[in-house]
Parts: sequence; C-alpha cells; structure tokens
Amino acid sequence: MSNEKLDSLRDELDQVNMEILSLINRRGELVKETAKAKVNQGPDKKYDPVREHQMLEKLKNHNEGPFQDATIIHLFKEIFKAGLELQEKDYSKEMLV
Amino acid sequence: MSNEKLDSLRDELDQVNMEILSLINRRGELVKETAKAKVNQGPDKKYDPVREHQMLEKLKNHNEGPFQDATIIHLFKEIFKAGLELQEKDYSKEMLV
Repeated sequence: MSNEKLDSLRDELDQVNMEILSLINRRGELVKETAKAKVNQGPDKKYDPVREHQMLEKLKNHNEGPFQDATIIHLFKEIFKAGLELQEKDYSKEMLV
Repeated sequence: MSNEKLDSLRDELDQVNMEILSLINRRGELVKETAKAKVNQGPDKKYDPVREHQMLEKLKNHNEGPFQDATIIHLFKEIFKAGLELQEKDYSKEMLV
C-alpha cells in the first residue's frame, strides 16, 4: 500500500479523533446539566449504578465491533468516571459559594 | 427541574453514547486498515510513539472543555491502547495462518 494511502488513513483517524473529542465534551456538558437537574436529591445521588448498568447494556446491545464488548465496557466506564469527577468538582464549587 | 427534563437529558446522553460507540468502532476499523498498510514494516512498528504524541497534541489543541486536557489525554490513551490490542490480535492471527 502506498504512503499516500497511509497518509489518507491517518488524516481520517485524526478526523475521527476530533469527532470523538467533541462528543466526549458534549457528553460532559450533558452530565453537568443532569447533575443540576438532580441537585435536590443530594450529592450521594450523583453516582447511579442502576443507570450506569442500563447504559452499559444498551452499549453492548448496539456494539457491532471490531472492538469486543469487554473493551467497549472498559472504555465507557472510564468515560463515565471522568463525568462523575466533573460533577464532583462542580458540587465542591457549589459548597464553597 | 422536572422529571421530564431529566428524562430528556438522559435520552440525549444515550444518543451521545451511541455516537461515541459508533466512532470508537469506526476508529478500530481505521486502525486495522492502517496496520495492514504498515505490514511490511514488521510487528514492532505497530506502536508509534511519535504519531501518538502528535495525535495527543492535536487533541489538546482542539479541547474546548468541560473536560480538562489531562482527562482527555487519559481517555484517548485508553482508546489508543485498545486499538493497539486490536492490531496485535490481528497480527497473531496472521502468524497462525
């Protein structure tokens, strides 16, 4: 395969990286909004294992590969954890006001 | 905020999850194609630290938050690692043929 082909694949990879970046940050904004919507339920309600389980099940059901379910679950658990940290940071800020 | 608002945010989160899933798998396909394009360079060329550094720099430059650069770097390193594992699995299969 030519170097041109390799360059074109790398350009496409960069493009997909940027789209994933944009969606992860969009997800972060939605998580923050969701946390605000749940604010009356108290800080211990930010982590919702039932909801997380539901999201992971949906992801497994829609996973068409090439990544295996276990890899997808691992990656999304990291994404969920980052979202949770974002909420906790926001909550700490609120407590300081 | 009403429960309707919360439900609507959760629907949107599910939608974004599916879009991220789809892009992560699209990325996996591109990584496999890239590995094929590099096949003459040998198996030790699958991990390319210079290329990884370039991708991470681009991601940092395009990161508009709410996630901090460190979080984005962490998540993408996990995504890259998964891609590398995918290539290694493919290479092992080739060796068995």
